[in-house]
Amino acid sequence: MSRMRRRIKLIVEYDGTDFYGFQRQPGLRTVDQVLEKAIARVTGEEVRVLAAGRTDAGVHALGQVVVFDTCSVIPAQRFAPALNSWLPEDVQIVSSEECAPDFNPRHAALSKTYRYLIYRQKAGYTLWRRYAHFYDRPLDLEAMQAAARLVVGRHDFAAFMASGSAVKDTVREVYSFEVREEMPWLTMEINGNGFLYHMVRNLAGSLLEVGRGAVTVEEFADVLNSGDRSMAGPTAPAQGLYLVEVRY
Amino acid sequence: MSRMRRRIKLIVEYDGTDFYGFQRQPGLRTVDQVLEKAIARVTGEEVRVLAAGRTDAGVHALGQVVVFDTCSVIPAQRFAPALNSWLPEDVQIVSSEECAPDFNPRHAALSKTYRYLIYRQKAGYTLWRRYAHFYDRPLDLEAMQAAARLVVGRHDFAAFMASGSAVKDTVREVYSFEVREEMPWLTMEINGNGFLYHMVRNLAGSLLEVGRGAVTVEEFADVLNSGDRSMAGPTAPAQGLYLVEVRY
Repeated sequence: MSRMRRRIKLIVEYDGTDFYGFQRQPGLRTVDQVLEKAIARVTGEEVRVLAAGRTDAGVHALGQVVVFDTCSVIPAQRFAPALNSWLPEDVQIVSSEECAPDFNPRHAALSKTYRYLIYRQKAGYTLWRRYAHFYDRPLDLEAMQAAARLVVGRHDFAAFMASGSAVKDTVREVYSFEVREEMPWLTMEINGNGFLYHMVRNLAGSLLEVGRGAVTVEEFADVLNSGDRSMAGPTAPAQGLYLVEVRY
Repeated sequence: MSRMRRRIKLIVEYDGTDFYGFQRQPGLRTVDQVLEKAIARVTGEEVRVLAAGRTDAGVHALGQVVVFDTCSVIPAQRFAPALNSWLPEDVQIVSSEECAPDFNPRHAALSKTYRYLIYRQKAGYTLWRRYAHFYDRPLDLEAMQAAARLVVGRHDFAAFMASGSAVKDTVREVYSFEVREEMPWLTMEINGNGFLYHMVRNLAGSLLEVGRGAVTVEEFADVLNSGDRSMAGPTAPAQGLYLVEVRY
């Protein structure tokens, strides 16, 4: 009698600082390899993990969703503590449960939430440098909020996709995009049905351009409608970005 | 004509994670050596720095005060940006100014403020592990606050000094000691005229014992009055401690 194969769903948090992103790259430390190594320790099986979103080097996650298949008889909920005892301190499993054997965390996602964090003062940034982007000059918060409201809805986000990206369908729907300031923090939180490569960081960079007055809200609207990457603002740095939650 | 020798006072912030404390230890990375190296780059002089408080490995600073002497003609305020351009990203100068040539940042201090930070939930601690102590079980905040009130005043703090410390006069005065919880944070902030070696971390560890109910407020009072280190709680870990401010 062979053991039953099950699919286990993990909620994973990680500090992206010392990773070359989520996805395997030869010779580099990536989140997937670290997870696969811990799973091998616990189950004795060689597995490949599948994630809801591939995060870049330096990008953090509070609620990344990852699945893997196993024939181990370990109760699903026990995987979280078992894996945590093998994982390095910059990746931890928040929870583990069994899911449908065909559950694909990427394709099944109804929405994802990303947060972009900006630190607004010089004092203390030494301790925040891995976890937020620094910007201490004045920002027009209302203009940024007006630009963020324009992003909500179904749009062709080609202007905010990393150049060289091979994706063909660049239409995505953004359900909410909130910008709030609570000194010393400015937080941008965006929820949508999917995001193009670098889209959140490009939106954050463009909103900063609006905030500092280099681009008007009207010009931002033109960029959004243009579909032209070369018109958008710079890509905001990775360390300010967090994958917060994936909903199914 | 020889150039005039001046004493420069720096406000310094650092992330203690990758330092073996403030003070020089052969072959180890310490804050003083990193500062002295940057000063040598800027002035061409070999100097020794003097700090208000020697912090241990892993302990952070937002407002450490450091002085050094120089014959350089660089305007005092320019030292902050000049040094920052040579300093690694985990040490930065907040401000620089000229002070009296005999100003001793340690002896002249009227009071120092330390903060001890505890992270009260599992979710997100992966990203906070360098900057806070983790404790997610229930804590009796009122009992901790009652114990903290007992600490305020002039006391012999021998019970909270690291064993093996050579200091003879163990009487210090604590001006305020506040414990507040704002989830997911619990913050202890203490201000006093001086602190014994490990005193803040030992007080924090003992207050946690009170909070979790292992020690009553009355027993805590007995420990404080006993002067007996072996009766006090464990030393709370370094990464939760911050030197916040030194007043003169």
